[in-house]
Amino acid sequence: MATEHSQDSQPLYLEDLAPGQRFTSGTCLVDDAAIKAFAAQFDPQPFHLDPQVARDTLFQGLVASGWHTAALTMRLLVTGGLKLAGGLIGTGATISWPEPTRPGDVLRVETELVEVKPSRSRADRGTATFRCTTLNQRDEVVQTFTGTLLVWRRPRP
Amino acid sequence: MATEHSQDSQPLYLEDLAPGQRFTSGTCLVDDAAIKAFAAQFDPQPFHLDPQVARDTLFQGLVASGWHTAALTMRLLVTGGLKLAGGLIGTGATISWPEPTRPGDVLRVETELVEVKPSRSRADRGTATFRCTTLNQRDEVVQTFTGTLLVWRRPRP
Repeated sequence: MATEHSQDSQPLYLEDLAPGQRFTSGTCLVDDAAIKAFAAQFDPQPFHLDPQVARDTLFQGLVASGWHTAALTMRLLVTGGLKLAGGLIGTGATISWPEPTRPGDVLRVETELVEVKPSRSRADRGTATFRCTTLNQRDEVVQTFTGTLLVWRRPRP
Repeated sequence: MATEHSQDSQPLYLEDLAPGQRFTSGTCLVDDAAIKAFAAQFDPQPFHLDPQVARDTLFQGLVASGWHTAALTMRLLVTGGLKLAGGLIGTGATISWPEPTRPGDVLRVETELVEVKPSRSRADRGTATFRCTTLNQRDEVVQTFTGTLLVWRRPRP
C-alpha cells in the first residue's frame, strides 16, 4: 500500500482512520554527542557514554540508550510522522530494540495503522493501535513499537 | 516478600536471581523545568510544554511525556534500583502509563523479578524478566514496565 499521509497533511480524527494506512516521518541524525548527553542524564552506562569502554562490551562500540531511540522516535512522530488531532496520547505499548542506534545513524519512522476502535462509553473518542518501525539509513530496524493511542472524533459543526 | 536488595548491594549474576526477588530504587524529583526541557527536545506537544494550554486538555495541567517517565525510570534503575553485572541491557518490553507524571512528583521504582531463563545455546548468559513499577509520592502508579534483560553468568574463577 502506498504512503497515504506525509508530514504536510492535516491532523486526523477517528473518522479519517482505517487499518492499513501508512505514515512516514522525516529523518533525524543521531550523533556521538547526543548519545552521550542523553545517557549522562538518563542511562549512565559505559556502553552509552564511553566509546573506548564500549568497544569491549556486547555492543562493540558506542550505542544509544534504547530510551533515547524511543524518545527520538516520539520526536519524529510528533513533528510530522503521525498527525492526530489533539496530539499523540498513548496509554500503553510494546517495544523492542532489535539493533542498537549508533553514532551517525539517520533514523526515520514508518507507521502502519493496525486497528481502530470507537469508544463504547464515550461518544467523543476512540483508540487506535499503530505499529511504528524505526529504521536507520541502512534500513535496519532499531526499534519496533506497537502503541495504542487516544483518538478524538471530529467535532460536529 | 521483603526487600532483598538495596542500592548498596553487589551487582548480580544469573546465579543470584530467583523469581519473587524485589528491588527498590532511590527517588527522583521531577520539576516543571525538567518536564518542559525533555518535551522541547523529544515530545513537543502543548500539554508537555505550556501549563496554561495544558489546563484545557485531557490532562488539566502540565504533564511529563511518557518517554520522560520511562527515561527517569531507567535512571533510577541504573543508579541503584537494579544492579546487574555488565549493566542493564534490554531487548524488549511492555509499558503503560496509568497516570501522568506531574511537576513536583517524586518518583521511585519498585521491581520484582518474574522469570529467569538460562540461555539454551550460550553458556555465559541468560535472560530475566522484571516487572518495574514507577510510583509517585502518593503511591500512584505512573508507569508499569515489564522488560526482558540480558543477564550474565558469574565467570568461573
